[in-house]
Amino acid sequence: MKKIEILENQFSDKNFKMNLLHESENFKIINFNFKKGQILPVHSHDIDGELSLLVLEGEGKFLGADNLESPAKTGDLFISLISEPHGMKAETDMRILITIAPPL
Amino acid sequence: MKKIEILENQFSDKNFKMNLLHESENFKIINFNFKKGQILPVHSHDIDGELSLLVLEGEGKFLGADNLESPAKTGDLFISLISEPHGMKAETDMRILITIAPPL
Repeated sequence: MKKIEILENQFSDKNFKMNLLHESENFKIINFNFKKGQILPVHSHDIDGELSLLVLEGEGKFLGADNLESPAKTGDLFISLISEPHGMKAETDMRILITIAPPL
Repeated sequence: MKKIEILENQFSDKNFKMNLLHESENFKIINFNFKKGQILPVHSHDIDGELSLLVLEGEGKFLGADNLESPAKTGDLFISLISEPHGMKAETDMRILITIAPPL
């Protein structure tokens, strides 16, 4: 068993900040923190696998193909194939948790 | 892309409540809600794979082998092999999110 405390104050003024929390043969868990206005542009990877995205705190938009913008707020969970276009736009300071399985 | 709203008021007085949020070939995501005092007893499964446990809200103890009790509070993340003994004891009303990969 491993306990990981997700720090709440890990932001950067330059760009969203990425903290790798765990990586194994089963999954990869990453914390992304966005200051208000920061964006993870829509992207995709041409590989198998899936990701979950949980909003730990804050509000913004989950970005998808064809300019899709889906409202995202604290406690919302999104599931996407890694091969589907996905991204995030923060409308307040925002902390999210991504789980990728199997890991990239 | 699928959006899942994790409801905050899904408790039961009888026992902890389990809500399956997502299941695929890559992972299984389950929300467990405990009223104060409810317990998921220590257990394990003799199979490969790993689970992550995120405390969405509340406080309690993560239970492990040899009577281990590790303090668990909102925002804490625990990682365990599925084959390692694991459990949870709620000391306040508590909502947690479990991700199992690969799925059972």
